[in-house]
Amino acid sequence: MIDEIARAWAYLSRVAEPPCPELRALAMQVGPVEAAERVRSGDVDNDVARRTEARRQIDCAAKDLEILDRMGGRLVAADDAEWPLLAFNSFRSIDDRPQAHEPMVLWAVGSASLDEVSYRAAAIVGTRAATAYGEFVAADLAAGLAIRDAAVVSGGAFGIDGAAHRAAMAADGVTVAVLAGGVDVPYPAAHAAMLRRVRDQGLLISEYPPGERPARHRFLTRNRLVAALAGATVIVEAGARSGAANTAAWARALGRSVCAVPGPVTSSVSVGCHALLRAGANVVTRAEDVVELIGHVGELAPDEQRPVSVLDGLADTDKRVYDALPARGSRTSDEVAVAAGLPPTQVLGPLAVLELSGLAVRREGRWKLVRPT
Amino acid sequence: MIDEIARAWAYLSRVAEPPCPELRALAMQVGPVEAAERVRSGDVDNDVARRTEARRQIDCAAKDLEILDRMGGRLVAADDAEWPLLAFNSFRSIDDRPQAHEPMVLWAVGSASLDEVSYRAAAIVGTRAATAYGEFVAADLAAGLAIRDAAVVSGGAFGIDGAAHRAAMAADGVTVAVLAGGVDVPYPAAHAAMLRRVRDQGLLISEYPPGERPARHRFLTRNRLVAALAGATVIVEAGARSGAANTAAWARALGRSVCAVPGPVTSSVSVGCHALLRAGANVVTRAEDVVELIGHVGELAPDEQRPVSVLDGLADTDKRVYDALPARGSRTSDEVAVAAGLPPTQVLGPLAVLELSGLAVRREGRWKLVRPT
Repeated sequence: MIDEIARAWAYLSRVAEPPCPELRALAMQVGPVEAAERVRSGDVDNDVARRTEARRQIDCAAKDLEILDRMGGRLVAADDAEWPLLAFNSFRSIDDRPQAHEPMVLWAVGSASLDEVSYRAAAIVGTRAATAYGEFVAADLAAGLAIRDAAVVSGGAFGIDGAAHRAAMAADGVTVAVLAGGVDVPYPAAHAAMLRRVRDQGLLISEYPPGERPARHRFLTRNRLVAALAGATVIVEAGARSGAANTAAWARALGRSVCAVPGPVTSSVSVGCHALLRAGANVVTRAEDVVELIGHVGELAPDEQRPVSVLDGLADTDKRVYDALPARGSRTSDEVAVAAGLPPTQVLGPLAVLELSGLAVRREGRWKLVRPT
Repeated sequence: MIDEIARAWAYLSRVAEPPCPELRALAMQVGPVEAAERVRSGDVDNDVARRTEARRQIDCAAKDLEILDRMGGRLVAADDAEWPLLAFNSFRSIDDRPQAHEPMVLWAVGSASLDEVSYRAAAIVGTRAATAYGEFVAADLAAGLAIRDAAVVSGGAFGIDGAAHRAAMAADGVTVAVLAGGVDVPYPAAHAAMLRRVRDQGLLISEYPPGERPARHRFLTRNRLVAALAGATVIVEAGARSGAANTAAWARALGRSVCAVPGPVTSSVSVGCHALLRAGANVVTRAEDVVELIGHVGELAPDEQRPVSVLDGLADTDKRVYDALPARGSRTSDEVAVAAGLPPTQVLGPLAVLELSGLAVRREGRWKLVRPT
């Protein structure tokens, strides 16, 4: 990106609290350099003026870009090849929600391409107050997705998010952390090392310029990007009231699959998941279930393994005759007929089937069960 | 019931393996006494002849009735006031399934009336190999149903069934055990004491005459009665392959509500529940959820309790200004405007709201948060 353009985007990124569709429209229309110039000089319509009034005198674009540069990062704007056009286009169909707008420009650090990632990605999100069960399942799903070449998108938080990021990386997969503050502001601070690994192995992105700290409304605004970048959003554990439910709501509004992992009904952090299941979310118990939702046509999850029984191939009458053989001792075919409630002539065929299957033997005119050894 | 009629029903109950719609039709048409006479003498059509051939010489009706009498039990037939007409009528709409037939006559022991019970009952069933979690939830649901005057129907088995029966009784509720063998054959044997309590406090019923032992196909046949007697069938824990899934299938076929309790996805005995949820079963986490399904119109489950926050009543802009106040220290209203990305004139109203709500205070022209004490 040419310096002048990058500086303009950096200025515009900070001058209005995202998302600001009015400012985005202006930048798309006249280009970022001209848009930045107009905002700076106040030569803008009322909507943009109102949204940029508080910060238009602040210009730390050069410093912001220096910070980004030192981290090896880049700005990604709508005319970049890396811009996930399809992922973000879906915001256009839900413009009635207050925050339902495409981002204008993203701060990104990491080698993965945002666009490529978004073609095959699932979000794994959930409560910070995760249980050991929740963290185990989040990790299991993330590793399973990584192994199946799907990226794992999450929010970098404690609990479910962290377990998902870590497991995706441990399985050599790509993981994306979408932050609610600047890419140079590790949040939570205790996840600084993990987030550094995320940017080495995947991608760290944010709508907010360097130095910006997360705030409540920024988490909610951020959640829309998590949902938009993923084909499916999986809530692993969530309380009755949680940010994860907000991400799920974004996923639903954007036409993405919403998934929830069931958990013990005795667990307060599965309450949100069960509420989502009641509302029609997909039941997810394995990574394959998620891949089926985000994958290519025909990439169906294999059936779950079921135990098999030696009686599986038998017809109903055969099974009934089998059941009529005594647990101990033996019976004549007439006695078997009485026990089974079948005419004597109708038990002879089934007895022969059982003998051929090795399930029963005849000894001196009496039938007995063969116990599997 | 007049002795002659009782003896006829007892004979008919044993002569064909239930359900036998042909024999039932004959008994309904000519009455049990005449039907028994015809079966005994072979004066019946081919269908009935085939179904009764093996056992028509066996008549232990007098002995069977003596056993029933000693237990204080009774036979319940379709013309009895206690016959749960509505519950069993629904079999008529699904006659295409091989076992989908009303019972002909039931052996019953216990003070509860089968008909009354069926007006407000839920089945709680599941695996014999239940976990502590499953038994806890089964007991919790059964107690909750009992407290809400709903009967708990189950199959008397180890695991989920037993936990449900026991908890319903402990809560002074009515519970019904539907057996796959005679009412005098406690099965499993280790549940003999529990089943005795069930018949003292609720109802023990069976389609099979005294002395008959359960068999595989009888469990499946029995399951249809469990499902039919209950307005909803709740599967608490079930493996990939389980009798509980069979009961659920009956409930669905009969137009009853099918419910499943979520559990850990790491538990092999929740696999069946999650499969049912995928297939559209109702998510059940509390007894209220079940009562909503089986109860009277308008008997809705209360919303689950959600934690509340002091910010709940605030408008979005108020929250954004709240978030713009620093965690430590204070800010002027202009600084708050920059942090919130709002025009300075637009933060004054929200700051006043926060002050009135006790969430922020002004000291010497600067604003700071009030921490909840």
